[in-house]
Amino acid sequence: MELPSRLIEAAVDQVSSLPGIGKKTALRLVLNLLARSDEQVEAFAGALLKMKEGIHACSECHNLTEDPTCSICENSSRSSQLVCVVEDIRDLLAMESTGQFSGKYHVLGGVISPMDGIGPNDLNIETLVERLKRYTQELPETEVIFALPATMEGETTAFYLFRKLSDLPLKITAIARGLSVGEDLQHADEATLIQSLKQRIPYTH
Amino acid sequence: MELPSRLIEAAVDQVSSLPGIGKKTALRLVLNLLARSDEQVEAFAGALLKMKEGIHACSECHNLTEDPTCSICENSSRSSQLVCVVEDIRDLLAMESTGQFSGKYHVLGGVISPMDGIGPNDLNIETLVERLKRYTQELPETEVIFALPATMEGETTAFYLFRKLSDLPLKITAIARGLSVGEDLQHADEATLIQSLKQRIPYTH
Repeated sequence: MELPSRLIEAAVDQVSSLPGIGKKTALRLVLNLLARSDEQVEAFAGALLKMKEGIHACSECHNLTEDPTCSICENSSRSSQLVCVVEDIRDLLAMESTGQFSGKYHVLGGVISPMDGIGPNDLNIETLVERLKRYTQELPETEVIFALPATMEGETTAFYLFRKLSDLPLKITAIARGLSVGEDLQHADEATLIQSLKQRIPYTH
Repeated sequence: MELPSRLIEAAVDQVSSLPGIGKKTALRLVLNLLARSDEQVEAFAGALLKMKEGIHACSECHNLTEDPTCSICENSSRSSQLVCVVEDIRDLLAMESTGQFSGKYHVLGGVISPMDGIGPNDLNIETLVERLKRYTQELPETEVIFALPATMEGETTAFYLFRKLSDLPLKITAIARGLSVGEDLQHADEATLIQSLKQRIPYTH
Protein backbone atom coordinates (compact mmCIF):
# COMPACT_ATOMS: atom_id res chain seq x y z
CA MET A 1 0.00 0.00 0.00
CA GLU A 2 1.62 3.24 -1.13
CA LEU A 3 1.00 6.12 1.22
CA PRO A 4 0.25 9.59 -0.15
CA SER A 5 3.06 11.33 1.74
CA ARG A 6 6.45 10.72 3.34
CA LEU A 7 5.33 12.42 6.52
CA ILE A 8 2.51 9.90 6.89
CA GLU A 9 4.90 7.10 5.99
CA ALA A 10 7.35 8.19 8.69
CA ALA A 11 4.56 8.33 11.27
CA VAL A 12 3.27 4.89 10.24
CA ASP A 13 6.82 3.50 10.47
CA GLN A 14 7.20 4.83 13.99
CA VAL A 15 3.81 3.59 15.21
CA SER A 16 4.30 0.17 13.63
CA SER A 17 7.63 -0.14 15.48
CA LEU A 18 5.54 -0.73 18.61
CA PRO A 19 5.08 -4.38 19.58
CA GLY A 20 2.01 -6.04 18.06
CA ILE A 21 1.16 -3.09 15.79
CA GLY A 22 1.29 -3.88 12.07
CA LYS A 23 1.38 -1.40 9.19
CA LYS A 24 -2.38 -1.47 8.64
CA THR A 25 -3.20 -0.87 12.29
CA ALA A 26 -0.54 1.84 12.43
CA LEU A 27 -2.17 3.61 9.49
CA ARG A 28 -5.55 3.45 11.21
CA LEU A 29 -4.07 4.97 14.38
CA VAL A 30 -2.14 7.62 12.47
CA LEU A 31 -5.24 8.68 10.51
CA ASN A 32 -7.14 8.91 13.78
CA LEU A 33 -4.46 11.26 15.11
CA LEU A 34 -4.55 13.29 11.89
CA ALA A 35 -8.28 13.85 12.37
CA ARG A 36 -7.61 15.49 15.77
CA SER A 37 -6.84 19.14 16.43
CA ASP A 38 -3.24 20.43 16.58
CA GLU A 39 -3.59 20.85 20.35
CA GLN A 40 -4.72 17.26 20.79
CA VAL A 41 -1.81 15.86 18.78
CA GLU A 42 0.60 18.09 20.72
CA ALA A 43 -0.89 16.78 23.98
CA PHE A 44 -0.47 13.23 22.69
CA ALA A 45 3.18 13.63 21.71
CA GLY A 46 3.83 15.79 24.77
CA ALA A 47 2.60 13.12 27.17
CA LEU A 48 5.06 10.63 25.69
CA LEU A 49 7.98 13.09 25.79
CA LYS A 50 7.23 14.24 29.34
CA MET A 51 6.98 10.65 30.48
CA LYS A 52 10.32 9.75 28.87
CA GLU A 53 11.93 12.81 30.42
CA GLY A 54 10.48 12.40 33.91
CA ILE A 55 10.50 8.65 34.44
CA HIS A 56 13.48 6.47 35.27
CA ALA A 57 14.21 3.27 37.13
CA CYS A 58 14.17 3.22 40.93
CA SER A 59 17.79 3.02 42.11
CA GLU A 60 16.83 0.25 44.53
CA CYS A 61 14.37 -2.07 42.76
CA HIS A 62 14.20 -0.81 39.12
CA ASN A 63 10.50 -0.07 39.38
CA LEU A 64 9.58 3.05 37.39
CA THR A 65 9.46 6.29 39.32
CA GLU A 66 9.76 10.08 39.06
CA ASP A 67 11.88 10.15 42.24
CA PRO A 68 15.29 8.63 43.03
CA THR A 69 13.59 5.66 44.70
CA CYS A 70 10.05 4.44 44.11
CA SER A 71 7.05 4.74 46.43
CA ILE A 72 7.19 1.03 47.27
CA CYS A 73 10.85 1.16 48.34
CA GLU A 74 10.14 4.38 50.28
CA ASN A 75 7.15 2.85 52.07
CA SER A 76 8.45 1.95 55.53
CA SER A 77 5.38 -0.16 56.29
CA ARG A 78 6.48 -2.63 53.61
CA SER A 79 8.86 -5.33 54.73
CA SER A 80 12.36 -5.58 53.30
CA GLN A 81 12.50 -9.15 54.57
CA LEU A 82 10.35 -10.20 51.64
CA VAL A 83 11.62 -9.43 48.13
CA CYS A 84 9.56 -10.47 45.13
CA VAL A 85 11.58 -10.86 41.92
CA VAL A 86 9.57 -10.10 38.75
CA GLU A 87 10.37 -9.93 35.05
CA ASP A 88 9.00 -6.47 34.36
CA ILE A 89 6.91 -3.59 35.59
CA ARG A 90 3.67 -5.09 34.34
CA ASP A 91 4.23 -8.15 36.50
CA LEU A 92 4.90 -5.87 39.45
CA LEU A 93 1.62 -4.03 38.74
CA ALA A 94 -0.25 -7.34 38.44
CA MET A 95 1.16 -8.44 41.80
CA GLU A 96 0.30 -5.09 43.39
CA SER A 97 -3.25 -5.26 42.09
CA THR A 98 -3.84 -8.34 44.27
CA GLY A 99 -3.29 -6.15 47.33
CA GLN A 100 -1.84 -9.24 49.08
CA PHE A 101 1.87 -8.57 48.96
CA SER A 102 3.40 -6.38 51.64
CA GLY A 103 7.09 -6.80 50.79
CA LYS A 104 9.32 -5.15 48.22
CA TYR A 105 10.12 -5.94 44.60
CA HIS A 106 13.06 -6.37 42.31
CA VAL A 107 12.41 -5.84 38.60
CA LEU A 108 14.84 -7.84 36.47
CA GLY A 109 13.92 -6.06 33.24
CA GLY A 110 13.54 -9.33 31.34
CA VAL A 111 14.40 -13.00 31.59
CA ILE A 112 17.42 -14.93 30.33
CA SER A 113 16.70 -15.83 26.71
CA PRO A 114 19.64 -16.96 24.59
CA MET A 115 17.32 -17.10 21.56
CA ASP A 116 16.71 -13.36 21.88
CA GLY A 117 20.32 -12.67 22.83
CA ILE A 118 19.43 -11.77 26.43
CA GLY A 119 22.02 -13.00 28.93
CA PRO A 120 22.33 -12.48 32.71
CA ASN A 121 24.40 -9.32 32.21
CA ASP A 122 21.50 -7.66 30.40
CA LEU A 123 19.32 -8.02 33.47
CA ASN A 124 19.27 -6.30 36.89
CA ILE A 125 20.82 -9.31 38.62
CA GLU A 126 23.97 -7.77 40.12
CA THR A 127 21.88 -5.15 41.91
CA LEU A 128 19.61 -7.90 43.27
CA VAL A 129 22.57 -9.80 44.69
CA GLU A 130 24.03 -6.65 46.28
CA ARG A 131 20.67 -5.66 47.65
CA LEU A 132 20.02 -9.05 49.22
CA LYS A 133 23.56 -9.10 50.67
CA ARG A 134 22.76 -5.81 52.37
CA TYR A 135 19.34 -6.97 53.56
CA THR A 136 20.60 -10.27 54.97
CA GLN A 137 23.29 -8.40 56.93
CA GLU A 138 20.73 -6.02 58.39
CA LEU A 139 17.72 -8.29 58.82
CA PRO A 140 17.28 -11.92 59.86
CA GLU A 141 15.15 -14.35 57.84
CA THR A 142 15.02 -12.55 54.52
CA GLU A 143 12.93 -14.33 51.91
CA VAL A 144 13.21 -13.87 48.17
CA ILE A 145 10.22 -14.99 46.08
CA PHE A 146 10.71 -15.80 42.41
CA ALA A 147 7.55 -14.60 40.65
CA LEU A 148 8.82 -15.35 37.16
CA PRO A 149 6.92 -16.58 34.10
CA ALA A 150 6.21 -20.31 33.89
CA THR A 151 8.24 -20.56 30.68
CA MET A 152 11.57 -22.08 29.76
CA GLU A 153 13.14 -18.62 30.01
CA GLY A 154 11.51 -17.95 33.36
CA GLU A 155 12.72 -21.30 34.74
CA THR A 156 16.24 -20.73 33.41
CA THR A 157 16.35 -17.33 35.05
CA ALA A 158 15.07 -18.70 38.35
CA PHE A 159 17.73 -21.42 38.34
CA TYR A 160 20.47 -18.89 37.52
CA LEU A 161 19.32 -16.63 40.37
CA PHE A 162 19.09 -19.59 42.73
CA ARG A 163 22.75 -20.41 42.10
CA LYS A 164 23.81 -16.76 42.39
CA LEU A 165 22.02 -16.37 45.72
CA SER A 166 22.82 -19.76 47.23
CA ASP A 167 25.67 -18.40 49.39
CA LEU A 168 23.43 -15.90 51.14
CA PRO A 169 21.44 -16.82 54.29
CA LEU A 170 18.17 -16.50 52.40
CA LYS A 171 14.92 -18.39 52.18
CA ILE A 172 14.28 -18.80 48.46
CA THR A 173 10.74 -19.55 47.28
CA ALA A 174 8.83 -19.45 44.02
CA ILE A 175 5.15 -18.75 43.39
CA ALA A 176 3.10 -21.93 42.94
CA ARG A 177 2.35 -23.49 39.57
CA GLY A 178 -1.03 -25.16 39.26
CA LEU A 179 -4.57 -24.94 38.01
CA SER A 180 -5.83 -21.42 37.39
CA VAL A 181 -8.82 -20.48 39.53
CA GLY A 182 -11.94 -21.46 37.57
CA GLU A 183 -10.01 -23.83 35.29
CA ASP A 184 -11.14 -27.38 34.41
CA LEU A 185 -8.70 -30.28 34.71
CA GLN A 186 -9.60 -31.39 31.20
CA HIS A 187 -8.54 -28.03 29.77
CA ALA A 188 -5.32 -27.75 31.74
CA ASP A 189 -2.14 -28.83 29.98
CA GLU A 190 -0.27 -31.89 31.17
CA ALA A 191 2.76 -30.03 32.52
CA THR A 192 0.53 -27.84 34.68
CA LEU A 193 -1.30 -30.90 36.04
CA ILE A 194 2.00 -32.58 36.91
CA GLN A 195 3.11 -29.41 38.74
CA SER A 196 -0.20 -29.12 40.58
CA LEU A 197 0.11 -32.73 41.71
CA LYS A 198 3.73 -32.34 42.84
CA GLN A 199 2.95 -29.14 44.71
CA ARG A 200 -0.20 -30.45 46.38
CA ILE A 201 -0.98 -28.93 49.76
CA PRO A 202 -2.87 -30.12 52.85
CA TYR A 203 -6.58 -29.72 52.25
CA THR A 204 -8.23 -27.01 54.36
CA HIS A 205 -11.70 -25.59 54.22
CA MET B 1 -4.32 -1.32 38.07
CA GLU B 2 -2.69 1.65 39.76
CA LEU B 3 0.24 3.06 37.82
CA PRO B 4 3.41 4.11 39.64
CA SER B 5 3.42 7.69 38.27
CA ARG B 6 1.13 10.37 36.86
CA LEU B 7 3.43 10.83 33.88
CA ILE B 8 2.96 7.18 32.91
CA GLU B 9 -0.76 7.49 33.58
CA ALA B 10 -1.01 10.51 31.27
CA ALA B 11 0.88 8.67 28.52
CA VAL B 12 -1.31 5.57 28.93
CA ASP B 13 -4.43 7.77 28.79
CA GLN B 14 -3.26 9.33 25.53
CA VAL B 15 -2.29 6.05 23.88
CA SER B 16 -5.52 4.35 24.99
CA SER B 17 -7.49 7.18 23.37
CA LEU B 18 -6.56 5.60 20.03
CA PRO B 19 -9.23 3.36 18.49
CA GLY B 20 -9.00 -0.29 19.50
CA ILE B 21 -6.28 0.28 22.12
CA GLY B 22 -7.31 -0.58 25.68
CA LYS B 23 -5.53 0.43 28.89
CA LYS B 24 -3.54 -2.81 29.12
CA THR B 25 -2.28 -2.61 25.55
CA ALA B 26 -1.53 1.09 26.02
CA LEU B 27 0.60 0.27 29.05
CA ARG B 28 2.51 -2.35 27.06
CA LEU B 29 3.20 0.17 24.27
CA VAL B 30 4.14 2.94 26.70
CA LEU B 31 6.60 0.66 28.56
CA ASN B 32 8.09 -0.29 25.22
CA LEU B 33 8.66 3.41 24.48
CA LEU B 34 10.12 3.96 27.96
CA ALA B 35 12.71 1.28 27.26
CA ARG B 36 13.95 3.20 24.21
CA SER B 37 16.57 5.94 24.17
CA ASP B 38 15.62 9.62 24.50
CA GLU B 39 16.45 10.13 20.83
CA GLN B 40 14.18 7.29 19.75
CA VAL B 41 11.24 8.62 21.76
CA GLU B 42 11.88 12.11 20.36
CA ALA B 43 11.88 10.66 16.84
CA PHE B 44 8.62 8.86 17.61
CA ALA B 45 6.83 11.94 18.94
CA GLY B 46 8.48 14.12 16.28
CA ALA B 47 7.17 11.99 13.41
CA LEU B 48 3.61 12.44 14.72
CA LEU B 49 4.00 16.19 15.21
CA LYS B 50 5.65 16.73 11.82
CA MET B 51 2.91 14.73 10.15
CA LYS B 52 0.18 16.74 11.88
CA GLU B 53 1.92 19.99 10.94
CA GLY B 54 2.64 19.09 7.33
CA ILE B 55 -0.40 17.13 6.25
CA HIS B 56 -3.82 18.53 5.39
CA ALA B 57 -6.73 17.67 3.15
CA CYS B 58 -6.46 18.18 -0.61
CA SER B 59 -8.58 21.25 -1.48
CA GLU B 60 -10.12 19.32 -4.36
CA CYS B 61 -10.81 15.76 -3.20
CA HIS B 62 -9.94 15.77 0.56
CA ASN B 63 -7.23 13.13 0.10
CA LEU B 64 -4.29 13.76 2.45
CA THR B 65 -1.41 15.74 1.01
CA GLU B 66 1.52 18.01 1.88
CA ASP B 67 0.64 20.31 -1.06
CA PRO B 68 -2.48 22.39 -1.76
CA THR B 69 -3.85 19.63 -4.00
CA CYS B 70 -2.91 15.96 -3.92
CA SER B 71 -0.80 14.03 -6.41
CA ILE B 72 -3.87 12.23 -7.79
CA CYS B 73 -5.73 15.48 -8.52
CA GLU B 74 -2.52 16.96 -9.98
CA ASN B 75 -1.97 13.95 -12.24
CA SER B 76 -3.18 15.07 -15.66
CA SER B 77 -3.13 11.50 -17.00
CA ARG B 78 -5.98 10.64 -14.64
CA SER B 79 -9.47 11.30 -15.96
CA SER B 80 -11.73 13.82 -14.28
CA GLN B 81 -14.67 12.22 -16.06
CA LEU B 82 -14.56 9.41 -13.53
CA VAL B 83 -14.91 10.32 -9.84
CA CYS B 84 -14.87 7.59 -7.23
CA VAL B 85 -16.56 8.53 -3.95
CA VAL B 86 -15.05 6.80 -0.90
CA GLU B 87 -15.66 6.98 2.82
CA ASP B 88 -12.08 7.62 3.93
CA ILE B 89 -8.43 7.66 3.00
CA ARG B 90 -7.92 3.98 3.73
CA ASP B 91 -10.60 3.11 1.19
CA LEU B 92 -8.87 5.36 -1.33
CA LEU B 93 -5.58 3.55 -0.65
CA ALA B 94 -7.28 0.15 -0.99
CA MET B 95 -8.71 1.25 -4.34
CA GLU B 96 -5.35 2.61 -5.48
CA SER B 97 -3.60 -0.61 -4.54
CA THR B 98 -5.65 -2.43 -7.20
CA GLY B 99 -3.90 -0.30 -9.84
CA GLN B 100 -7.12 -0.52 -11.90
CA PHE B 101 -8.66 2.88 -11.36
CA SER B 102 -7.51 5.76 -13.53
CA GLY B 103 -10.00 8.41 -12.46
CA LYS B 104 -10.09 10.75 -9.48
CA TYR B 105 -11.47 10.42 -5.97
CA HIS B 106 -13.64 12.26 -3.53
CA VAL B 107 -13.14 11.43 0.14
CA LEU B 108 -16.32 12.00 2.14
CA GLY B 109 -14.58 11.74 5.50
CA GLY B 110 -17.23 9.34 6.83
CA VAL B 111 -20.73 8.10 6.09
CA ILE B 112 -24.11 9.34 7.32
CA SER B 113 -24.74 7.69 10.67
CA PRO B 114 -27.49 9.18 12.84
CA MET B 115 -26.55 6.73 15.60
CA ASP B 116 -23.09 8.32 15.79
CA GLY B 117 -24.47 11.81 15.26
CA ILE B 118 -22.93 12.11 11.80
CA GLY B 119 -25.18 13.97 9.36
CA PRO B 120 -24.64 15.09 5.76
CA ASN B 121 -23.23 18.43 6.92
CA ASP B 122 -20.38 16.68 8.71
CA LEU B 123 -19.19 15.13 5.44
CA ASN B 124 -17.50 16.57 2.35
CA ILE B 125 -20.70 16.47 0.33
CA GLU B 126 -21.09 20.14 -0.65
CA THR B 127 -17.62 20.15 -2.20
CA LEU B 128 -18.51 16.97 -4.13
CA VAL B 129 -21.64 18.61 -5.57
CA GLU B 130 -19.73 21.78 -6.52
CA ARG B 131 -16.93 19.76 -8.02
CA LEU B 132 -19.23 17.62 -10.14
CA LYS B 133 -21.15 20.74 -11.26
CA ARG B 134 -17.87 22.16 -12.49
CA TYR B 135 -16.78 18.88 -14.13
CA THR B 136 -20.11 18.34 -15.91
CA GLN B 137 -19.93 21.88 -17.33
CA GLU B 138 -16.42 21.30 -18.63
CA LEU B 139 -16.56 17.65 -19.67
CA PRO B 140 -19.24 15.48 -21.25
CA GLU B 141 -20.20 12.10 -19.84
CA THR B 142 -18.89 12.43 -16.33
CA GLU B 143 -19.40 9.33 -14.22
CA VAL B 144 -19.47 9.20 -10.43
CA ILE B 145 -18.89 5.82 -8.80
CA PHE B 146 -20.11 5.22 -5.26
CA ALA B 147 -17.49 2.98 -3.64
CA LEU B 148 -19.09 3.07 -0.20
CA PRO B 149 -19.28 0.37 2.46
CA ALA B 150 -22.01 -2.27 2.04
CA THR B 151 -23.58 -1.25 5.33
CA MET B 152 -26.80 0.52 6.29
CA GLU B 153 -24.79 3.74 6.70
CA GLY B 154 -23.07 3.30 3.35
CA GLU B 155 -26.39 2.68 1.59
CA THR B 156 -27.99 5.67 3.29
CA THR B 157 -25.11 7.88 2.22
CA ALA B 158 -25.27 6.60 -1.37
CA PHE B 159 -29.00 7.29 -1.52
CA TYR B 160 -28.51 10.79 -0.10
CA LEU B 161 -25.79 11.53 -2.65
CA PHE B 162 -27.92 10.10 -5.46
CA ARG B 163 -30.69 12.57 -4.65
CA LYS B 164 -28.25 15.49 -4.26
CA LEU B 165 -26.68 14.73 -7.64
CA SER B 166 -29.80 13.78 -9.58
CA ASP B 167 -30.11 17.23 -11.23
CA LEU B 168 -26.65 17.00 -12.79
CA PRO B 169 -26.05 15.37 -16.20
CA LEU B 170 -24.11 12.54 -14.59
CA LYS B 171 -23.85 8.81 -14.93
CA ILE B 172 -24.13 7.48 -11.38
CA THR B 173 -22.85 3.96 -10.64
CA ALA B 174 -21.94 1.91 -7.57
CA ILE B 175 -19.36 -0.85 -7.15
CA ALA B 176 -20.89 -4.32 -7.38
CA ARG B 177 -22.02 -6.31 -4.37
CA GLY B 178 -21.56 -10.05 -4.61
CA LEU B 179 -19.48 -13.05 -3.67
CA SER B 180 -15.91 -12.30 -2.62
CA VAL B 181 -13.32 -13.92 -4.87
CA GLY B 182 -12.55 -17.34 -3.37
CA GLU B 183 -15.77 -17.39 -1.32
CA ASP B 184 -18.15 -20.37 -1.11
CA LEU B 185 -21.89 -19.88 -1.62
CA GLN B 186 -22.58 -21.80 1.57
CA HIS B 187 -20.49 -19.37 3.58
CA ALA B 188 -21.88 -16.23 1.98
CA ASP B 189 -24.64 -14.43 3.86
CA GLU B 190 -28.14 -14.33 2.41
CA ALA B 191 -28.17 -10.62 1.65
CA THR B 192 -24.96 -10.95 -0.38
CA LEU B 193 -26.37 -13.89 -2.34
CA ILE B 194 -29.52 -11.92 -3.12
CA GLN B 195 -27.38 -9.01 -4.35
CA SER B 196 -25.15 -11.27 -6.41
CA LEU B 197 -28.24 -12.80 -8.04
CA LYS B 198 -29.84 -9.41 -8.75
CA GLN B 199 -26.61 -8.03 -10.18
CA ARG B 200 -25.82 -11.08 -12.31
CA ILE B 201 -23.85 -10.34 -15.47
CA PRO B 202 -23.57 -11.99 -18.88
CA TYR B 203 -21.22 -14.99 -18.60
CA THR B 204 -17.92 -14.55 -20.43
CA HIS B 205 -14.82 -16.68 -20.46
